[in-house]
Amino acid sequence: MAKRILFQFDIDSQPSSFDAVVAIDSGVDHLIPYAGVQATLIEPLVHGAMFTRGDKDLKNTAIFLGGSDVEAAETLLRCVTDAFFGPVRVSVMMDANGCNTTAAAAVVAAARHIDLAGSRAVVLSGTGPVGQRVSRLLARDGAHVTLTSRSRSRAQRVCDSVAQEIADASDAPPNLKAAAAGSPEEVTAVLSDAQIVVACGAAGVQLASENDLTSAQDLVVAIDLNAVPPSGLGGVAVMDKGSPISEGASAVGYGAIGVGGLKMKTHRAAIESLFESNDKVLNIDEIYQIAQAVDRR
Amino acid sequence: MAKRILFQFDIDSQPSSFDAVVAIDSGVDHLIPYAGVQATLIEPLVHGAMFTRGDKDLKNTAIFLGGSDVEAAETLLRCVTDAFFGPVRVSVMMDANGCNTTAAAAVVAAARHIDLAGSRAVVLSGTGPVGQRVSRLLARDGAHVTLTSRSRSRAQRVCDSVAQEIADASDAPPNLKAAAAGSPEEVTAVLSDAQIVVACGAAGVQLASENDLTSAQDLVVAIDLNAVPPSGLGGVAVMDKGSPISEGASAVGYGAIGVGGLKMKTHRAAIESLFESNDKVLNIDEIYQIAQAVDRR
Amino acid sequence: MAKRILFQFDIDSQPSSFDAVVAIDSGVDHLIPYAGVQATLIEPLVHGAMFTRGDKDLKNTAIFLGGSDVEAAETLLRCVTDAFFGPVRVSVMMDANGCNTTAAAAVVAAARHIDLAGSRAVVLSGTGPVGQRVSRLLARDGAHVTLTSRSRSRAQRVCDSVAQEIADASDAPPNLKAAAAGSPEEVTAVLSDAQIVVACGAAGVQLASENDLTSAQDLVVAIDLNAVPPSGLGGVAVMDKGSPISEGASAVGYGAIGVGGLKMKTHRAAIESLFESNDKVLNIDEIYQIAQAVDRR
Repeated sequence: MAKRILFQFDIDSQPSSFDAVVAIDSGVDHLIPYAGVQATLIEPLVHGAMFTRGDKDLKNTAIFLGGSDVEAAETLLRCVTDAFFGPVRVSVMMDANGCNTTAAAAVVAAARHIDLAGSRAVVLSGTGPVGQRVSRLLARDGAHVTLTSRSRSRAQRVCDSVAQEIADASDAPPNLKAAAAGSPEEVTAVLSDAQIVVACGAAGVQLASENDLTSAQDLVVAIDLNAVPPSGLGGVAVMDKGSPISEGASAVGYGAIGVGGLKMKTHRAAIESLFESNDKVLNIDEIYQIAQAVDRR
Repeated sequence: MAKRILFQFDIDSQPSSFDAVVAIDSGVDHLIPYAGVQATLIEPLVHGAMFTRGDKDLKNTAIFLGGSDVEAAETLLRCVTDAFFGPVRVSVMMDANGCNTTAAAAVVAAARHIDLAGSRAVVLSGTGPVGQRVSRLLARDGAHVTLTSRSRSRAQRVCDSVAQEIADASDAPPNLKAAAAGSPEEVTAVLSDAQIVVACGAAGVQLASENDLTSAQDLVVAIDLNAVPPSGLGGVAVMDKGSPISEGASAVGYGAIGVGGLKMKTHRAAIESLFESNDKVLNIDEIYQIAQAVDRR
Repeated sequence: MAKRILFQFDIDSQPSSFDAVVAIDSGVDHLIPYAGVQATLIEPLVHGAMFTRGDKDLKNTAIFLGGSDVEAAETLLRCVTDAFFGPVRVSVMMDANGCNTTAAAAVVAAARHIDLAGSRAVVLSGTGPVGQRVSRLLARDGAHVTLTSRSRSRAQRVCDSVAQEIADASDAPPNLKAAAAGSPEEVTAVLSDAQIVVACGAAGVQLASENDLTSAQDLVVAIDLNAVPPSGLGGVAVMDKGSPISEGASAVGYGAIGVGGLKMKTHRAAIESLFESNDKVLNIDEIYQIAQAVDRR
């Protein structure tokens, strides 16, 4: 049988060692890392992957796109799929900076505790790659999403962009609104009726205090994706995994490592699934489906 | 048993993914790609490959030289063999840009249809790496070769160089002549008594029309090594593999993909043979022998 | 079972092919080489290696630090261990330029012929990475070491530094002294009562003549670590392995290749031992212990 080959196309000057280990733990026989991969130079690499194996074996060659620059990786993904010739193609997964597996695992964790359809969710500091993806998944599953930033206009621009992406995927219109959440008063206001809170801020910045969370009377689940102390949500520790956010509270919290187990399993399952056929394109929506399936096991 | 290690020394900034997959499909246990390999820096890499395993295991380490610059790879090959110490050496194969496997497969395909010795062959646009190698193989097997270029003087320079290479390998004097084939009249003239035509032009340039080929009354086989439409030889499609060049014609044609199957098998067989002993140097003549053996299987 | 992954972090623009082959021959399942690794960029690579596998499997991921610049590799080693979080760590080995395995093998070879404790040893041209390590190991095992250089003050600076390193490892005070050994007279003087001589000079420089060695009446063992002719010690050939330094002499000699067998076995045993637990840090002292164990087998 043809060996499983994964081309790790990484944008950074050194390919991610994290992605390398996960690939090997997902059953890849030969990992071939490339550093400093640029959009202008990727076509011959994709063609080399496509044109070397016959129909039957082609599914055993796949591509992983990683690195710390998510936008550049999105561009690379388009270049990769543009290089395909009809059915002559290989499966490809994009998870630069872990953005897709992290966002998918966070939303699946939230859905363990509340039906997303019709729920009220707040994505704090939601303008980055992970926040955008969390908002997209929540909105596509019917949640009423408030995406915040210190600047309301920046939040609005990102909402518009996420809404456009969802519309492009021809869904029901999403329920997404922007809010500023810079000052303590703004944070209190935005959380007042939230059932789900996901904090996607920069490392070491607290976005809401423990008091903010306990004052949010409808809160069901609070997820903090920041792994570096202090935690982004007061009262939620990095190892928390569905434990009460404070003594006696009904709302539960997840820290980055608490979500991390599902994230890792999703990453591995996604890599494994690349080799099931030669036509997978695993981006946020496909990886979310994988995370859901992994969580049901 | 010692694992089979192939060092892929590639001149380009990203090592060929094509060569990587073929190496793995040839039974290599560990592929170790190097990018941007330069002649001035290769000696310690070759020494590291030579001085790490004992006599018995040394044949399980080998070197592949690739990349898009064939001349630079030829220089690297000399540097590699210069770095050997007598019997302390490892096997090495050069196939930059697929030049050797492509040329070898094309000539073997032609030889399926006509005895090369004494045949009349035309190599259109024969001045590049593949054309030179096709001309060399045809001439060494006794064909009367006409090598063309738009510029007759350029064609002559390349003929002289190929003839010198053949003389250096101390063969019978080759029968090689240069011709200009820029204008339609020149093409018609050069093809008038050709039995074999091999087109080695740039992608997407037609070198002879279907009418040129059907008018060549002695034509037996026409091979077009250009994979990008329009085809280099009118009437020969990229997938053709020994089919008539036009309805009712006795001459047959091969397109780039039609030759590609044998090229791939030759590439794999060549990599496999590297591990039979520690003293192989696989360049055009050795790879041609491998292609002949593969075709007889 | 988790596959054995070795990250080869190499400082040079091309990772060492030597280190790659040895790693594979030591049972590594997946070797992942990195070129041009810099101290400022290593933390995320170390974290990626640490945070991808659970407790039980973490010992199957390890790091090798290599390249031609030993000082830079020492700095990298500090950066690697600084990036660990308590017990969340992976095993790491430093052997840039083979400095540790070479020095360890040389001292173990000497100890086959004389009890190091109380012996008189001279390390010629001992100021480089290998010479410093040879001096350190000899002194820690109780030898009276004279470290030479053409410049006495340079030799003294290196002695002070080696002595400080030994003191930092809280041993008994080492017996180390500096000497100039540039002129023939200085060489004769420094060798006059030597029992052990180890030559660590640059390739192709003779540090002592055959006459110098035969005139050293107490000499027991002479080791030349230079592999390029002429040999660093007259009368000691590169392949010598415990053979008399001249006809009828009782002193024996080792050349670079004579020491090389033990060096290679030590290198392989060290790589294998990385995967026994996740907390090894293999630098000169640890690698010396491994060389001793390998030699006793």
